[in-house]
Amino acid sequence: EKTGTESVSCHKLQESMLSSASSFKNYRGILNWCVVMLVLSNARLVLENLLRYGILVDPIQVVSLFLKDPYSWPAACLIIVSNVFILAALYTERKLAMGYFSERFGLLVHIINLSVVLCFPVVIVLMVPSVTPVGGAIALGVYTILFLKLYSYKDVNRWCRERMQVKARPSPPSTEGAVHVSYPGNLSLKDLFYFVFAPTLCYELNFPRSPSVRMSFLLRRLFEMLILTQLLVGLTQQWMVPIIQSSMKPLQEMDYSRMMERLLRLAVPNHLLWLIFFYSFFHSSMNFMAELLRFGDREFYRDWWNSETVTYFWQNWNIPVHKWCIRHFYKPLLRKGASKLVSQSAVFFASAFFHEYLVSVPLRMFRLWAFMGMMAQIPLAWFVGRFLRGNYGNAAVWLSLIIGQPIAVLMYVHDYYQSLGVPPTGVS
Amino acid sequence: EKTGTESVSCHKLQESMLSSASSFKNYRGILNWCVVMLVLSNARLVLENLLRYGILVDPIQVVSLFLKDPYSWPAACLIIVSNVFILAALYTERKLAMGYFSERFGLLVHIINLSVVLCFPVVIVLMVPSVTPVGGAIALGVYTILFLKLYSYKDVNRWCRERMQVKARPSPPSTEGAVHVSYPGNLSLKDLFYFVFAPTLCYELNFPRSPSVRMSFLLRRLFEMLILTQLLVGLTQQWMVPIIQSSMKPLQEMDYSRMMERLLRLAVPNHLLWLIFFYSFFHSSMNFMAELLRFGDREFYRDWWNSETVTYFWQNWNIPVHKWCIRHFYKPLLRKGASKLVSQSAVFFASAFFHEYLVSVPLRMFRLWAFMGMMAQIPLAWFVGRFLRGNYGNAAVWLSLIIGQPIAVLMYVHDYYQSLGVPPTGVS
Repeated sequence: EKTGTESVSCHKLQESMLSSASSFKNYRGILNWCVVMLVLSNARLVLENLLRYGILVDPIQVVSLFLKDPYSWPAACLIIVSNVFILAALYTERKLAMGYFSERFGLLVHIINLSVVLCFPVVIVLMVPSVTPVGGAIALGVYTILFLKLYSYKDVNRWCRERMQVKARPSPPSTEGAVHVSYPGNLSLKDLFYFVFAPTLCYELNFPRSPSVRMSFLLRRLFEMLILTQLLVGLTQQWMVPIIQSSMKPLQEMDYSRMMERLLRLAVPNHLLWLIFFYSFFHSSMNFMAELLRFGDREFYRDWWNSETVTYFWQNWNIPVHKWCIRHFYKPLLRKGASKLVSQSAVFFASAFFHEYLVSVPLRMFRLWAFMGMMAQIPLAWFVGRFLRGNYGNAAVWLSLIIGQPIAVLMYVHDYYQSLGVPPTGVS
Repeated sequence: EKTGTESVSCHKLQESMLSSASSFKNYRGILNWCVVMLVLSNARLVLENLLRYGILVDPIQVVSLFLKDPYSWPAACLIIVSNVFILAALYTERKLAMGYFSERFGLLVHIINLSVVLCFPVVIVLMVPSVTPVGGAIALGVYTILFLKLYSYKDVNRWCRERMQVKARPSPPSTEGAVHVSYPGNLSLKDLFYFVFAPTLCYELNFPRSPSVRMSFLLRRLFEMLILTQLLVGLTQQWMVPIIQSSMKPLQEMDYSRMMERLLRLAVPNHLLWLIFFYSFFHSSMNFMAELLRFGDREFYRDWWNSETVTYFWQNWNIPVHKWCIRHFYKPLLRKGASKLVSQSAVFFASAFFHEYLVSVPLRMFRLWAFMGMMAQIPLAWFVGRFLRGNYGNAAVWLSLIIGQPIAVLMYVHDYYQSLGVPPTGVS
């Protein structure tokens, strides 16, 4: 039954795995641990939120963000009027191509047109009281995009004219099956409106085109857009708004430890909303438009989530704007003799201006928080690039994203409520 | 100044990185994101806790957990009395080696001795009212370890006698510099007490020994023990106790959504405390004892954090107990003709018994929550092994650890307060 020759020794000389003397290095399970802990912590937050506030999601309330008076749609009218500026740009280019306008006069007309594109919506938003902050922000966003597109349109057409002067021979025939357009054959209404709707800010005579519209791809992106927009609105109402409301009292009383607690509490939903916004705008919506228009270049973002420097993040999270800045702002500045550092700072300065423009005007108050937030990226970029490497740099970029945004949000919301004279409903 | 030969094309045909059509797979930054989010969420929890409760850490209160009456130290007396059972085991083995006891009679004496080791502290803890739950748990833990050690001592010495009968030649001379001990030369007080203090539950005549005591290693482990014990006590007072107290009201009122919320709220501190306990006990304390005794085998745990099955976790997180179970329980059962499944279930059953023993007796109430928690591992192990692979299996193991423990904790605390008749101070 028993063998009786049982081994009486069962130990051997060895180190513990966590000792530095052991060569064990496999901590693969820790990533799963992180994911499980994050899901659980947030499940608790969701439950706590529901228990404390009940269901706050209210689709009717959303309508009131866009419209004060259902018979007056000022933001929509503003967007429709923008067609005038598109036609003005096309008209100017046609006159320039035919030689009716000199280069100098054409540039003047373009500058006036572009200035009006930037200033006209500001005047309307500040003058018409029925424009809501959300409606105003959307209208200003559309006008900003239009400004960047028409600026690119003007530059590229000028480059074409300059190129024609240098070498007057026809461009090589297209290798693709599609018809190859050459200047001034591109100056048509159809070509310009294709560019206006295409998900890019850089004009080109012959955009790369995808072979066909993939119906399933189109419908999946549309589905994502619809679901994620609902999610954005729902999470804002249910999660952001109560925290912001309860932050007003500590902010007014300058209670620093409570302000810090509210800030950290706001950071999580704000960051998740930003991530959802990023995906729904830069992946779903842009790919949807591109698929619909058979626009071939789908690089709307690069791997900013791996950024180890602040500069890498800004160069990779918003490729349409980054491409525009390089092509129409940074390189022209370098050609005019500006140094690299000056040109980079100028790009940040322009970006800071547009951030402030898109926030201050719709809220009808000028506080420079967004401007300062963007300008603060320059010393931050220097600090991270100088002192932090690899994963530490990456963590610093994430931290600045997660913490930086809610600071600006709290600043603006606080000032907005104070400017309205509304006593904040402080739920402690 | 301007070259005029600017490239007018800046787009190329390509997919977005997040599209399945692109071959991009580098999401390294996501791990850093997880870490940053976890640190921030917990920083918020710490701040919220401090703002709500102030500083609750109280070193004097800790003493009251061990002692009700400062002139009566029942748990310490219990531990001192345990020497009697060690001496009884040595006496029995000596009589067996000299042939004064028959194998049958010796086994009977051992069984009586081991039964008393298990039952005597239970009687004392249940009879003497001045034993606190913490003091009782420590005393019972010491007696349980002693039971497992003396059981192993009895088995190994019997195996040595059986081996001597089979082959009566002397064992080969030791290859190490140390003196090689052979049966019955091991039956000394010094040898037995070395085994009692060594960080293992499996007896062996010639333990592997490390060449020397590394002073810096010893001091680092001692420092870790001291710091982590402080941290355990502090976090329990500051973080666990307020959550448990505020959970009593929802538990009594059977308010399921609030119970769920408290459970998730408790899961994070409970899990962190368990991780700290694991490190301080299985790494710091055991390595400290091993270094002090020049005990060579430092494998007190293996990489359970990578477990993809529940079985792998139980086989790797507590190696001393696992080794004992395999050597003195599982293999003897197999040799007696039991099937693998029956033997494995028997091991889980024995483990469930000891879990219940260590919790119920000090709390003086028998609710079987710990027993059922351990027995629930069998269907859980089957489920995870059958349906989940790789990272999903690993996540399931983590989830069962993080969620399973606080359920049991809440059950016992709830029943303990009810048995005391104390109305829970419900802080909602």
